[in-house]
Amino acid sequence: MRIIILNGPNLNLLEKRPADVYGNISLTEIEKIVKTAYPKHQFEFFQSNHEGELIERIQSADSTFDGLVINPGGFSHTSVAIKDALELCSVPKIEVHLSNIASRENFRNVMLTASSCNGYISGFREKGYLAAVFLLEKITAK
Amino acid sequence: MRIIILNGPNLNLLEKRPADVYGNISLTEIEKIVKTAYPKHQFEFFQSNHEGELIERIQSADSTFDGLVINPGGFSHTSVAIKDALELCSVPKIEVHLSNIASRENFRNVMLTASSCNGYISGFREKGYLAAVFLLEKITAK
Amino acid sequence: MRIIILNGPNLNLLEKRPADVYGNISLTEIEKIVKTAYPKHQFEFFQSNHEGELIERIQSADSTFDGLVINPGGFSHTSVAIKDALELCSVPKIEVHLSNIASRENFRNVMLTASSCNGYISGFREKGYLAAVFLLEKITAK
Amino acid sequence: MRIIILNGPNLNLLEKRPADVYGNISLTEIEKIVKTAYPKHQFEFFQSNHEGELIERIQSADSTFDGLVINPGGFSHTSVAIKDALELCSVPKIEVHLSNIASRENFRNVMLTASSCNGYISGFREKGYLAAVFLLEKITAK
Amino acid sequence: MRIIILNGPNLNLLEKRPADVYGNISLTEIEKIVKTAYPKHQFEFFQSNHEGELIERIQSADSTFDGLVINPGGFSHTSVAIKDALELCSVPKIEVHLSNIASRENFRNVMLTASSCNGYISGFREKGYLAAVFLLEKITAK
Amino acid sequence: MRIIILNGPNLNLLEKRPADVYGNISLTEIEKIVKTAYPKHQFEFFQSNHEGELIERIQSADSTFDGLVINPGGFSHTSVAIKDALELCSVPKIEVHLSNIASRENFRNVMLTASSCNGYISGFREKGYLAAVFLLEKITAK
Amino acid sequence: MRIIILNGPNLNLLEKRPADVYGNISLTEIEKIVKTAYPKHQFEFFQSNHEGELIERIQSADSTFDGLVINPGGFSHTSVAIKDALELCSVPKIEVHLSNIASRENFRNVMLTASSCNGYISGFREKGYLAAVFLLEKITAK
Amino acid sequence: MRIIILNGPNLNLLEKRPADVYGNISLTEIEKIVKTAYPKHQFEFFQSNHEGELIERIQSADSTFDGLVINPGGFSHTSVAIKDALELCSVPKIEVHLSNIASRENFRNVMLTASSCNGYISGFREKGYLAAVFLLEKITAK
Amino acid sequence: MRIIILNGPNLNLLEKRPADVYGNISLTEIEKIVKTAYPKHQFEFFQSNHEGELIERIQSADSTFDGLVINPGGFSHTSVAIKDALELCSVPKIEVHLSNIASRENFRNVMLTASSCNGYISGFREKGYLAAVFLLEKITAK
Amino acid sequence: MRIIILNGPNLNLLEKRPADVYGNISLTEIEKIVKTAYPKHQFEFFQSNHEGELIERIQSADSTFDGLVINPGGFSHTSVAIKDALELCSVPKIEVHLSNIASRENFRNVMLTASSCNGYISGFREKGYLAAVFLLEKITAK
Amino acid sequence: MRIIILNGPNLNLLEKRPADVYGNISLTEIEKIVKTAYPKHQFEFFQSNHEGELIERIQSADSTFDGLVINPGGFSHTSVAIKDALELCSVPKIEVHLSNIASRENFRNVMLTASSCNGYISGFREKGYLAAVFLLEKITAK
Amino acid sequence: MRIIILNGPNLNLLEKRPADVYGNISLTEIEKIVKTAYPKHQFEFFQSNHEGELIERIQSADSTFDGLVINPGGFSHTSVAIKDALELCSVPKIEVHLSNIASRENFRNVMLTASSCNGYISGFREKGYLAAVFLLEKITAK
Repeated sequence: MRIIILNGPNLNLLEKRPADVYGNISLTEIEKIVKTAYPKHQFEFFQSNHEGELIERIQSADSTFDGLVINPGGFSHTSVAIKDALELCSVPKIEVHLSNIASRENFRNVMLTASSCNGYISGFREKGYLAAVFLLEKITAK
Repeated sequence: MRIIILNGPNLNLLEKRPADVYGNISLTEIEKIVKTAYPKHQFEFFQSNHEGELIERIQSADSTFDGLVINPGGFSHTSVAIKDALELCSVPKIEVHLSNIASRENFRNVMLTASSCNGYISGFREKGYLAAVFLLEKITAK
Repeated sequence: MRIIILNGPNLNLLEKRPADVYGNISLTEIEKIVKTAYPKHQFEFFQSNHEGELIERIQSADSTFDGLVINPGGFSHTSVAIKDALELCSVPKIEVHLSNIASRENFRNVMLTASSCNGYISGFREKGYLAAVFLLEKITAK
Repeated sequence: MRIIILNGPNLNLLEKRPADVYGNISLTEIEKIVKTAYPKHQFEFFQSNHEGELIERIQSADSTFDGLVINPGGFSHTSVAIKDALELCSVPKIEVHLSNIASRENFRNVMLTASSCNGYISGFREKGYLAAVFLLEKITAK
Repeated sequence: MRIIILNGPNLNLLEKRPADVYGNISLTEIEKIVKTAYPKHQFEFFQSNHEGELIERIQSADSTFDGLVINPGGFSHTSVAIKDALELCSVPKIEVHLSNIASRENFRNVMLTASSCNGYISGFREKGYLAAVFLLEKITAK
Repeated sequence: MRIIILNGPNLNLLEKRPADVYGNISLTEIEKIVKTAYPKHQFEFFQSNHEGELIERIQSADSTFDGLVINPGGFSHTSVAIKDALELCSVPKIEVHLSNIASRENFRNVMLTASSCNGYISGFREKGYLAAVFLLEKITAK
Repeated sequence: MRIIILNGPNLNLLEKRPADVYGNISLTEIEKIVKTAYPKHQFEFFQSNHEGELIERIQSADSTFDGLVINPGGFSHTSVAIKDALELCSVPKIEVHLSNIASRENFRNVMLTASSCNGYISGFREKGYLAAVFLLEKITAK
Repeated sequence: MRIIILNGPNLNLLEKRPADVYGNISLTEIEKIVKTAYPKHQFEFFQSNHEGELIERIQSADSTFDGLVINPGGFSHTSVAIKDALELCSVPKIEVHLSNIASRENFRNVMLTASSCNGYISGFREKGYLAAVFLLEKITAK
Repeated sequence: MRIIILNGPNLNLLEKRPADVYGNISLTEIEKIVKTAYPKHQFEFFQSNHEGELIERIQSADSTFDGLVINPGGFSHTSVAIKDALELCSVPKIEVHLSNIASRENFRNVMLTASSCNGYISGFREKGYLAAVFLLEKITAK
Repeated sequence: MRIIILNGPNLNLLEKRPADVYGNISLTEIEKIVKTAYPKHQFEFFQSNHEGELIERIQSADSTFDGLVINPGGFSHTSVAIKDALELCSVPKIEVHLSNIASRENFRNVMLTASSCNGYISGFREKGYLAAVFLLEKITAK
Repeated sequence: MRIIILNGPNLNLLEKRPADVYGNISLTEIEKIVKTAYPKHQFEFFQSNHEGELIERIQSADSTFDGLVINPGGFSHTSVAIKDALELCSVPKIEVHLSNIASRENFRNVMLTASSCNGYISGFREKGYLAAVFLLEKITAK
Repeated sequence: MRIIILNGPNLNLLEKRPADVYGNISLTEIEKIVKTAYPKHQFEFFQSNHEGELIERIQSADSTFDGLVINPGGFSHTSVAIKDALELCSVPKIEVHLSNIASRENFRNVMLTASSCNGYISGFREKGYLAAVFLLEKITAK
């Protein structure tokens, strides 16, 4: 199974964000953990701080991947454009949030992009990515 | 690991709810699937249409279980009392929603109870329960 | 025709509520009036102050009744769970309000449960129950 | 008993409105059904697409009718002027809606005119008019 | 000075509206009071329950009158069309409300039409018309 | 092609409205411009300040015209009744606004009637009517 | 007749406020105009920038005056305390605004204090005070 | 004096709730403190996590008690049904909140049930119950 | 124990406010009642209609009093400045409202100042002051 | 006439978006249709998923083009930055939407960018581009 | 250059406010710092807890000062009257906030008074006053 | 001291924006003015219309600069992603706005990014940058 894992703005500096909200871990470490946990799958990790680049990766997912995991970071709550791109993409899609969105600032509670995914996982830090792959396996197995 | 899986109102009739939103599956089948997938854990399944009964089960979880999974159904969006009960409970707690909350009616988007859990999973139907147990394993392993 | 007539919280003390809003009548008197007016039908009257009990009666209506009349009282405006139960129930359903909801406090104007019924009747006091049975006859006749 | 049944804008073309919301019936057919069902009463049916004409008919109802049934159509949600006219009118008044207002667009949920009637009936299509006359009989009988 | 005094819907039945809000007086009596108080001016009184007729009278005011007094009744709060007509009219314009708008229902507090007049007077019942003419004299004197 | 062009309240005095918002042109001149630009089509121009008259013209369009252009003026933002009439009408329908609605007062931004048309054109003054006919040609050609 | 005319904050510098909104006139000139127009009445003019002083003057009006005119300036929209003081005062009370409140910033449209007066007059600049005295005469005459 | 002291959901685990908000005390200790402070009165303490049970205790208070103290916990902000029950009850009623509601989350600031009591006391932890009994003495003394 | 009891605007005329909301009692009588009930404490009563004077008394309380009781009247809902002053003051502080705030106009439900006190008491008229002193005794005893 | 036609995010995959909303057509086909319809003009088509690139093209339009057509896609509703860029640009500007914005999700109804154009056209799919060029011809002709 | 530096309510006790928000400094120390930093200018420092006194100082600034710095404290968010006074004042005006308003409670985010100043500075504690004088020098130099 | 000065979208065309709001100055001129005023510091000026590029520059600031000044332009009000980037950055950060945000359109009043800076300066045009550097000197000096 080929899986693309997209990460949005500021996730390249994850290890610098407040430890009590995001855990004390870097994106590279998350990548390693995911690859170790799922040696049978092929992963492409892609991080970008550019909305346009994320849109284009989502657009190209249909032809090259069997599943898509996305943590759009701050774009989750403001990007109609990423939402539209996800809607166009027909592979299974899962949104992951490191923190528990339900207990944060109001402006983070608008789930624009998640509504165009199969579903979303929020609050389990790096383990959310593992659960996303776990669910992609189940969804595509069916 | 001892895990309690709580289901709120109307989930006892899950197989009658619209198939395109909830999938075509009964709560008993979900129970079987979960137990088959995780034979090593001890599960207690509890469904109730009574807010008070759910509150009391949550209150008693601390002393008898290592993890709690809850799908509060319609109470997710209206019950401050269940929210308060979850806050009192110190074992790891995961909220599961069968449908993708982010793409439903507005009144279902208020996540009162989820904000008192470790996190929540939304949109993967019965597979959400499997992912919840998967995550409980990871959380308690740490 | 077998009809269940459900009444929610505080309707057991109807005769004590303000006469100008609710009329000066008890639930027992309403039951007598309805049975007298429609001697051909079988009625079951059920009142409860417990949301869960109302949900369970609604859940069981499908198999034993041909029509359902409900006055959910204060739950009309707050119970997503009763709304979900009504949606699961496939017999004709009519919501009745004794007072004219359109001219009362704002918080009573949210019609959560009525949107899951065939329709609703508001403002005619005990006569609303008579009209509900009148309409059930018409609906099932068709 | 002399009863005026007022219908607001676009109800003259009822048979052309979406069948799943309004049923497949014309206003003339409704008139026939009502008259057949209640041969003892005298009915005047009046339809207008003009707010002013409806206001004037309501104003004149006091002196010539014993009861008033109104389906104000789109004016239900926007006309303070019809609301004020209804308030001036002292015969029993019942508002009827063919569709279930509680499950439609938000802008249709403002019940300006209904709050100046005795009560309202919503969701039972042409049968709502029958129930309205049924209730007028009960109200005036008392 | 030629003055047109326009009255909107239901003001033809003024004497029937609640005495504590509107005073116990008919529109004809108001007309007599105004004419008696200001014998030097020529008055045209026009009442209509039709938005379109009020618009057309306003449109024609420019060429035949030196001042305009309007009590748009229920249209004050909902008619963008009357507001637009008033804006087109270049003679001095004064809106009059019999009751004190500031202490009534919320939906009456939107002052659409008053914002297109020179100013407005609210709460002095029939005396408001006298004050309006008093002010027209002052405005045009200047 | 037979086309009806409907204009709502105050458009009969278009030349008097503020030149910077509406351009300095009368409805008669617009009529002439449209007829000159499209000599092959038959046009009926109808202006009314009465909501009811506009509704009735829309209702009759189905049987006599191949296309409908409407500038509902102030009714665009308040008339559920015109919206319902447009929905009943099955010929292609285009709403035109002389000014750019997106940059005006908030109360003009509610597009009740436009949502029942094929689409709408806003901000190009009299040229908007030309573009509407241009689009009707394309739509019906297809 | 003894009349107190109260003016709130910044009205002591009236002549410095924007001429297109407030006219080009000082409070002293207004005082002179009022006294000249109504030589038979006794006037007390009181201006204060202190909410407490205005409250105390209102409190003392009952025993010494037959009528009260108030332009609370910026306090109109924010002072619950002045509103409460006016409610305690039993002489006829009229609020005056120099500008047309209905066409100004949103925060000026909350009419806290006016709802505790008999009524209010808005948009006629200094002439509003004259109309207020004119109305006090009529009200007390009755 | 016979007094019923009702406590809503999760107050049975009071000692587990955050000490800085609720103080470090159990409901049993509160009971003891109250009884010790007021040895002359007869107290019934009743705690329930079930909305229906609370409603029924309130309903029965009229016939058996002289005063009612209620801390509805999470139900304070969401239960129209408890509010309605309190309205039906004619003995003096006082609502108590352990924490200062005015400085907590927004959803806790809706005081549905308190508006049907004589008054309420908020922010004094267990001492609030003592003050409630103190006030019941004063109210009934009068 | 030295206690300052502050009363805000219009409370100096308490006996004139509507008896059904505020009871029929003057501030002087309240002072007498409090002093009689608590002969052991030293009280300073201070009433002002000036926001600034109340602020300055609050500022000086730290050094001269052991407890503060405040009824800010209309300032409760609008004064950020009094709220800030209360926050600066470190003696125990209790807000008292004569009427039950929870059942009054919306604009009185914003509790700006109460959120900076230990807690507040609402709805018990003059008895609220007695309860406040009762609670100050308990708080400082601890 | 030199015209730039800008298309925002996801319009490069237009043919994949839901046919009932967007029609079944690709951006390349639209380009061909426009060029065929208007052979006399020079067109530059530019599509980007990057907000910054769209801004820069708009910034450069002044010096190289005589007209600008833009379909900002999802950016229409969220980009203050594109709005600011359009305001800086002095050539005639027309916004085009393929679907009828007035009948879609609420978050698409905020028209940030359209308010900085001459006007906009919504709901005519690819024909909207043709009408935009048609209107640019008229606007620049004048 | 003569500069008046106005400080609103509770700033006289600045040193007692929470150190993490306001820094640990008194108003007297700020005065000293400002005078030391700008020995060439003449400063008048004025602090008041009375809205009216601040208004009157602002009113008198025109004739005696070349620049005005104001920290209105809690009045920033509620005083229309101070806003109006600032608008009347024609010397350069700068609002200073010690804390970063953008990251505080919602009710502090309404910037009523700042909108009538040249601009404002927020978040730099006592250094904000230095920057204000720095900017007054630049503005008046120009 | 090494300082980076970031400017967001459309500030590269500053000299073209409305002179009354932004002053008549280019970004290059601002750069020159800043460098001339502070010859001792090293400045890097960076302007971008791309959200992603601004994020990346902010991310890199920690390691190469001692202070950061940012004018995010239109992104100030919409970019959660830039807000998150600023939060990650530990050097002193100051937001500058050329215009007085407090007196502009509502959508510009949401200060998302400013809340993650030390503070912000608004309304002093190019002089705001000078004041920002002035404040950076003071902050880092401390």
